[in-house]
Amino acid sequence: MAVAHAALHALARSPSVMLSVQDALHIVLSKAHRLESVSVPIHGALGATLSEDVTAPKPHPPYPASIKDGYAVVAADGPGEYVVVGEARAGDDAENIVVKPGTVSYITTGGPVPNGADAVVMIENTIPVHDEFVEETGIKKVAILQGVVKGQDIRPVGSDIAQGDILLRAGEKIGPAEIGLLASMGFTEVKVFRRPRVAILSTGDELVDPVEGATLGPGQIRDSNRAMLLAAVVQNGCEVVDLGISPDVEDALEKKIGEAVASDVDVVITSGGVSMGDKDYVKPHLERRGKVYFGKVLMKPGKPVTFATIDVQAKSSNNKRQILVFALPGNPVSSLVCFFLFALPAIRQLAGWSDPYLRRVQARTTRSLKLDPERPEFHRVTVRWQVDDGSGRPGFVAESTGHQISSRLLSMRSANALLELPLSEGILPAGTLVPALVIGDLSNMPVINQSSSRPNHRHHHNHGNQEKSHSGH
Amino acid sequence: MAVAHAALHALARSPSVMLSVQDALHIVLSKAHRLESVSVPIHGALGATLSEDVTAPKPHPPYPASIKDGYAVVAADGPGEYVVVGEARAGDDAENIVVKPGTVSYITTGGPVPNGADAVVMIENTIPVHDEFVEETGIKKVAILQGVVKGQDIRPVGSDIAQGDILLRAGEKIGPAEIGLLASMGFTEVKVFRRPRVAILSTGDELVDPVEGATLGPGQIRDSNRAMLLAAVVQNGCEVVDLGISPDVEDALEKKIGEAVASDVDVVITSGGVSMGDKDYVKPHLERRGKVYFGKVLMKPGKPVTFATIDVQAKSSNNKRQILVFALPGNPVSSLVCFFLFALPAIRQLAGWSDPYLRRVQARTTRSLKLDPERPEFHRVTVRWQVDDGSGRPGFVAESTGHQISSRLLSMRSANALLELPLSEGILPAGTLVPALVIGDLSNMPVINQSSSRPNHRHHHNHGNQEKSHSGH
Ligand SMILES: [Mg+2]
Ligand SMILES: [Mg+2]
Repeated sequence: MAVAHAALHALARSPSVMLSVQDALHIVLSKAHRLESVSVPIHGALGATLSEDVTAPKPHPPYPASIKDGYAVVAADGPGEYVVVGEARAGDDAENIVVKPGTVSYITTGGPVPNGADAVVMIENTIPVHDEFVEETGIKKVAILQGVVKGQDIRPVGSDIAQGDILLRAGEKIGPAEIGLLASMGFTEVKVFRRPRVAILSTGDELVDPVEGATLGPGQIRDSNRAMLLAAVVQNGCEVVDLGISPDVEDALEKKIGEAVASDVDVVITSGGVSMGDKDYVKPHLERRGKVYFGKVLMKPGKPVTFATIDVQAKSSNNKRQILVFALPGNPVSSLVCFFLFALPAIRQLAGWSDPYLRRVQARTTRSLKLDPERPEFHRVTVRWQVDDGSGRPGFVAESTGHQISSRLLSMRSANALLELPLSEGILPAGTLVPALVIGDLSNMPVINQSSSRPNHRHHHNHGNQEKSHSGH
Repeated sequence: MAVAHAALHALARSPSVMLSVQDALHIVLSKAHRLESVSVPIHGALGATLSEDVTAPKPHPPYPASIKDGYAVVAADGPGEYVVVGEARAGDDAENIVVKPGTVSYITTGGPVPNGADAVVMIENTIPVHDEFVEETGIKKVAILQGVVKGQDIRPVGSDIAQGDILLRAGEKIGPAEIGLLASMGFTEVKVFRRPRVAILSTGDELVDPVEGATLGPGQIRDSNRAMLLAAVVQNGCEVVDLGISPDVEDALEKKIGEAVASDVDVVITSGGVSMGDKDYVKPHLERRGKVYFGKVLMKPGKPVTFATIDVQAKSSNNKRQILVFALPGNPVSSLVCFFLFALPAIRQLAGWSDPYLRRVQARTTRSLKLDPERPEFHRVTVRWQVDDGSGRPGFVAESTGHQISSRLLSMRSANALLELPLSEGILPAGTLVPALVIGDLSNMPVINQSSSRPNHRHHHNHGNQEKSHSGH
């Protein structure tokens, strides 16, 4: 132990190999290979990525269909009174109806256009006729008030989708509309990349499970990282395995990693145990067990973030496969920031995304920010859209979440982006346009200044959202 | 029936009451009341909205904690060689350690600062001493290479979170960081607004369930709306009830609505049966069963969208409660657009959102768009971020999804926003800045032009995402 301790002292003073975030991510993604393609029911495909192009097996609509409720007519007939020879309703075959010149057929939206008809007059441009002929014969008549051109309000066969059209391409993400498209074409299953299976482990002698942590002993804190990372992984469409907490004992750690392997996971995410303490066993254990690619990245927070792979026997075949291991720092903010910067792009790539990177936007800062002269900083912010971002034009503004110490999880509260502050001396003035990596769903970004936000102050809501302002307030 | 038919003819010609989208939404939201507050386990609260402020019951950290691995020292001592009197590791109580002037204690990240110590020197600025004294006594010594100020690398009690601090406010949405915060403070349950329970029904004689629709009879199409709307509702955190398909028969419709009521839903979303056909029973049925607030909105697509409420007996009490009913048009695009514009804000408000509206951004069009002289149009687009949106500055660009006929579900494929095109004659030139309502998660918006997109063309990816460009290509 004294030797290990001394070795750590030495390592700490050695010219440390500090990768840039960009180079570290490059390494991670070079090891993150798309998972296999699996067939799933379409309702189970929400959020997944298509692994194959999907083409239309049939044209849509499959029959010439009416766009309106009204009358199927011969366009050349023009306005006038006509005998109604049938009713072509949605769901009918309309095969027994023939619309000859001088006659029309009632038709509903989506109904099949009967033989002979070549246009539809919407019901708003018609009026039923109640004359002697109608009373005596019971045969219906209608007055067509307005002429139409041939083809009017008819969707020809295949006009929405032609047979053989590409419906969806491999690599596209499946949302509600894509599920509707697949359903409309009769697909009940679809091929997607398998969802990653991710194990989460917290390490540290000081950690107590929140469920058991009603009161804390001296020197103890609650394990917040595991609940947080499990939620982050679930939110990103993965299956999860909760490995619990490992004390700072190498055997215990080894057992937990063994459990992850036995659970057939694709990714293991640990937190804690990667700094310079004499019981920080995670890096040495990963060195012994697999291959460590980096253990330090030039960034703030998150410097000790570690990435490794472990070779394991694939359950289903004789092949070897690799588990990706992200050993995140124990401080909750460092841990979540490193999740977004390294683990999430890897998870996305496993899940088949062709663009696994976090999306970058530019946002204007609302206050001055001190730069760090030693490391580029990922400053947590809440971005929102403003019709005038301060420059007289629409754009994102970025509001800092406050004090950025990596133990202060409040600095991640409501954060939907990470400002990329450059390594530099000095102060970045308020109103600077800064690149920001998107880590939250912007479809629910705040529409008002967070710090001035009060629940139910509805009158502030007229900028940047669906409601239009009625007045100038 | 002839009377009803004639009445519809009359209604169709009457000066129709066409609400604006804004006024229609105003009515909807005036009827959408927050659901009750429920207590859920924190891991089940992901995506929910807090119904109460949460304050910190204790300070965090609960003890003065080291920020670094290194040595706890008396700052006034300065550099020099010191005897190591103990080891204060994370998880220890360190109660038996007293750091007197002239001594130090080993300490790890997160470890409790022992009595007497007032600063931490990180291990990188120390070196173990191996002198005769150490060899003879076995007592450890360390050389402190650099002086520190009082308080250096120590997090005082409550420095991250003071007792009584607001952790989270009522109305905030719960994501991974918020779950971590709750866990760190020992909360295992949290009070949130109940998730809405939503029933989905498709109506139409022409509809065949996709599972049974391997081949279609004449005049039949597959029901795509139900799978699509179920997915949309699931994606927005609701519980769902699948009511299947109702034929165009009022008794059948009545039975389905009865099933929804029996299933204790908060919202019913139907599609189809709201146009001018003689078997479009949805509106008349809702008139009889409850109260219809509007049945026509000045918009394209989606004009016949209908909103109603139905009073029902609450299961759990003697109170009456109201079910919100959105009767969407049958065309799949109209149906999904109306879901986003009316049903989604209502669902968000039920779920406790204080900002239920769709978020509005401004986006620059990539091509000219024809305006509609009769109705404002919600043109489906894919927005993406560009460092230069065409104006020389960063911004969203909006790419049309192509032909916008409301039957063409391909126009919703990959759409993440609805351009709000004004009711107007003429052509909107390419490069115009247009308001757009966000309907998709922009954290996965495309980073390259959709129409020029090819899978795996990684070299395009250096704009607008996390990867930084290495070269100028
Ligand atoms: Mg530790
Ligand atoms: Mg119908």
